Amino acid sequence: MPWTYDAPLADMRFVLEHVLDAPSAWARCGRHAELDLDTAASVLEEAAKFAAGVLLPLNASGDAQGCRLEAGRVRTPQGYREAYRAYVDGGWAALAGEPAWGGQGLPLLLDAAVREMLAACNHGWVMYPDLLHGACEVLLHHGSEALKDRYLQRLVTGQWLAAMALTEPGAGSDLGALRTRAEPQPDGSLRLRGSKVFISGADHDLTDNVVHLVLCRLPDAPPGSKGLSLALVPTVLPDGYRNAVHVDGLEHKLGIHGSATCALRYEDATGWLVGEPHRGLAAMFLMMNSARLHVGLQGLGHQEVAAQNARRQAAERVQFGRPIAQQPAMRQALLRGQALAEAHRVIAYRAALALDRAALHDDPQVRAAEQRMAALLTPVVKACLTEQGFAGASAALQVWGGYGYVEETGIAQVLRDSRIAMVYEGTNEIQAIDLMQRKLLADGGAGWQAWAAEARAEAARCEAAGTDPALAVVAAALRGQLDAADAALAALARYAHADAQAPLALAGDVLQGVHHALLAWAWAASARAAAGHPDTAWAQARTARMRWAAEWLLPQGLLHWRRVADGAPALPLVC
Amino acid sequence: MPWTYDAPLADMRFVLEHVLDAPSAWARCGRHAELDLDTAASVLEEAAKFAAGVLLPLNASGDAQGCRLEAGRVRTPQGYREAYRAYVDGGWAALAGEPAWGGQGLPLLLDAAVREMLAACNHGWVMYPDLLHGACEVLLHHGSEALKDRYLQRLVTGQWLAAMALTEPGAGSDLGALRTRAEPQPDGSLRLRGSKVFISGADHDLTDNVVHLVLCRLPDAPPGSKGLSLALVPTVLPDGYRNAVHVDGLEHKLGIHGSATCALRYEDATGWLVGEPHRGLAAMFLMMNSARLHVGLQGLGHQEVAAQNARRQAAERVQFGRPIAQQPAMRQALLRGQALAEAHRVIAYRAALALDRAALHDDPQVRAAEQRMAALLTPVVKACLTEQGFAGASAALQVWGGYGYVEETGIAQVLRDSRIAMVYEGTNEIQAIDLMQRKLLADGGAGWQAWAAEARAEAARCEAAGTDPALAVVAAALRGQLDAADAALAALARYAHADAQAPLALAGDVLQGVHHALLAWAWAASARAAAGHPDTAWAQARTARMRWAAEWLLPQGLLHWRRVADGAPALPLVC
Repeated sequence: MPWTYDAPLADMRFVLEHVLDAPSAWARCGRHAELDLDTAASVLEEAAKFAAGVLLPLNASGDAQGCRLEAGRVRTPQGYREAYRAYVDGGWAALAGEPAWGGQGLPLLLDAAVREMLAACNHGWVMYPDLLHGACEVLLHHGSEALKDRYLQRLVTGQWLAAMALTEPGAGSDLGALRTRAEPQPDGSLRLRGSKVFISGADHDLTDNVVHLVLCRLPDAPPGSKGLSLALVPTVLPDGYRNAVHVDGLEHKLGIHGSATCALRYEDATGWLVGEPHRGLAAMFLMMNSARLHVGLQGLGHQEVAAQNARRQAAERVQFGRPIAQQPAMRQALLRGQALAEAHRVIAYRAALALDRAALHDDPQVRAAEQRMAALLTPVVKACLTEQGFAGASAALQVWGGYGYVEETGIAQVLRDSRIAMVYEGTNEIQAIDLMQRKLLADGGAGWQAWAAEARAEAARCEAAGTDPALAVVAAALRGQLDAADAALAALARYAHADAQAPLALAGDVLQGVHHALLAWAWAASARAAAGHPDTAWAQARTARMRWAAEWLLPQGLLHWRRVADGAPALPLVC
Repeated sequence: MPWTYDAPLADMRFVLEHVLDAPSAWARCGRHAELDLDTAASVLEEAAKFAAGVLLPLNASGDAQGCRLEAGRVRTPQGYREAYRAYVDGGWAALAGEPAWGGQGLPLLLDAAVREMLAACNHGWVMYPDLLHGACEVLLHHGSEALKDRYLQRLVTGQWLAAMALTEPGAGSDLGALRTRAEPQPDGSLRLRGSKVFISGADHDLTDNVVHLVLCRLPDAPPGSKGLSLALVPTVLPDGYRNAVHVDGLEHKLGIHGSATCALRYEDATGWLVGEPHRGLAAMFLMMNSARLHVGLQGLGHQEVAAQNARRQAAERVQFGRPIAQQPAMRQALLRGQALAEAHRVIAYRAALALDRAALHDDPQVRAAEQRMAALLTPVVKACLTEQGFAGASAALQVWGGYGYVEETGIAQVLRDSRIAMVYEGTNEIQAIDLMQRKLLADGGAGWQAWAAEARAEAARCEAAGTDPALAVVAAALRGQLDAADAALAALARYAHADAQAPLALAGDVLQGVHHALLAWAWAASARAAAGHPDTAWAQARTARMRWAAEWLLPQGLLHWRRVADGAPALPLVC
């Protein structure tokens, strides 16, 4: 059975229209006010054609070929360059870009759905354009007019690509330990020296220039992360000469072989400061929400493509005289994969909608509230969607049995590719701490309380909506999660008050608890929306699946909240 | 930091001596009566030298090179053949073999510890000898005298190797669908025709002959699994000519690249019947317990090598000014990996001890009881140790961050290699059903009740043993698991009585519930044993770790038992 991708367009439209009611949001969001659902749906339809038609055929071949370093320059796998040209020509790079700089200004919500599809079809390839939006945001908000004039339009349209040069040998999560130096020059430029590792797409043959955003230190920088500045360093200088950016090697990785992961040196490379001196980290944080959302969407793409191929395989593969999809354990695994992907889609799209509303809503209070919502949802989307991207691939592999372990089948590549998303853009452990410390404990939990109020309103809506007993079940499950969360978070705040370090041992459970509360909300909202959907058979199946998921998968969330409420036992030393 | 393996010899001896009290068992087991702990420990010490000194250096290179097919013959990676000669010369193949046929007759318990170490160092290589013991058992108990005379000594000593030829295209878990035909010939031999896939080590250059045990059908065979016979088919015939066994291809797999996974054809190959016509499956089942135990031990080896390298890495890698091993989330992950490996070692070795006592104990009632014990433990060992082999590798990868995703580090190979163990020798889903249907529901749960009585006695021993409050904690946790299990299993029996199909949706939870009960027992027994251990610092650390594990990891088991007790909600259809 060939590996395929059938974009979940119906589900995407259902989420936009019936679960999130995006058109009502767009109506209050400036340039999105004119957008209607049919237009949005046709954009997604075209994106699905590009993803499945152009990127999917390059997925296995790109994995097998990988990237090569030839005379210091990176060569991407066959077909990557042509696919990128089609991507730019199709306007996909500019989809959510700033209209003043050549962008189409469409919602990040639509961009999210597009990115999910691209990642589902070819994670290795999508690494090249996936950081572009974040780089443009940084430049738009922090770049000088001269830098914007020189770079922004070419980046927004995708004529050039960008790379984020953060990590150095010995400085991964701990950015304060970075050592790359930047010396100001009389002409206002910077001269950079230093080494970076794990820089995705630092060089390649998709575009003629690659614009690096480099975390570095000025001579008078204070130590630690408060002494980091941000520099723009292009691989090709405005005069047409190559900059002193040397790729020393490509990593030999478990997956995403089509993505060039570079070790590189700046040897007196020329660059320019972006933003204020020593405020580089703050500028980078601007792109964190969108970059982490993109990584979460990669996880969602992996979930979807693994789950849908597994369903097809299970429907076709006969063992003991019937399709294996009929075996209860197999059915549970398939339902689980599908229900989680559906809920994660709702959650990720809600985060994208929050970014749109935070930027463009006509009410400043809504903008502020949606900024908090995006901040709350982002670490959960990043960590939990990528975790399930990998776990879902592993669960799907099991459906093929021994054939799943053979590379030609396709699922093994998803397993390998998906694993990186749990690591990069802040490890999932970093996300858990970010969620707990900065999003739940730091601001008195305002973001959480706003979300919980929205979720309780959804539970009430479910109860009011219907005669379908499933709605009462999902509403009760949602309330159960919220009640458990309230009690646990109150306990957590007490622990933190007594000892700021105490909650750290609970961060993983807090993350999973919030994740399950979000799942409960997504399943409830989806069941409620499906109950009013015109396609009755489709809607009934969906409502039944949401109910099953709420009953079967949410008790795990109560366990996490219980652990948070009870506190962690003393941690012995590691021998 | 180089990838290493430091065999857990102290822990192995601790389990043998203080947790399982193996010498008392050996005293009642015929030829093992003379064995003492120092001898056993020195055997393990030598095995550790072989594993770390000979096999580990071939692990990454064998992965990189893989196997090749040259003119229809399989070539294994460089060094494999020499390593195998050293293995045979060292007597490792014959370790637990039947003394009458050249074996050393040592306990399967020691063999289990040896296999754990071999798999930890080189899973790809260990695939070749790992099925040998099971093949010898089949031949010993079902082979004709002529076949035994011709093959058994050479197999027991490892001069020749064996392959198990079960799976065919379209017949994986469902062996009843096998189609390979065997025609009886006038001289008493069989002529075989058919195709097999996923046959590990069907051909290679480690030995001059490979003896296949082939599931096949005689002309008058009834349909389904009751019509399967077992044939012995050597790749080289007694007259020195090659048999008509053709390797058509090698699978290109996610991992264990050093293991030759063959697609092959028997084209009128010559073989001989093993055992009774149409009773091939019963003969194969004889080797199931030991083969599945071996696969579980592979999972344990993966856990151990991943966890110990992760601990070293976390102790050395500094982020935010201190070793990452000091971060609470990291410490929890490291403790979890270590405590699970320790408990899984106790459980797997208990299963091996059960096989020894079932075969050799002087009391026939003990033999019967231990046979039930082995049957109960085997599916849990196979499924849960391999699941954690993979999950533990993934958790360990996270400790390296981006470096873990790079192949040179070593952990990515463990992740890839370990994944197959969840699939082969009966998928983990098959193990769950086997446990529930045949080991818990079928015999009125006699095996479970015997084990639960042993576990309750251990809880009482903990309570009687000590002043250390940790012992009271682990004892209470163990009782909690057993009480929950009793209630849940009673409910399960009621569901099964009402509808034989109903429990199938609970098989995964039953497996995990039993797994947690076994963990609780292993942690309690280890804590109790450590409390009386002469090395005080080591013992205190171990007791503290067991207590932490019981408090922090066992609530998950109660959730599984709760789900079993409550029953599964109706399963919607998969769309």
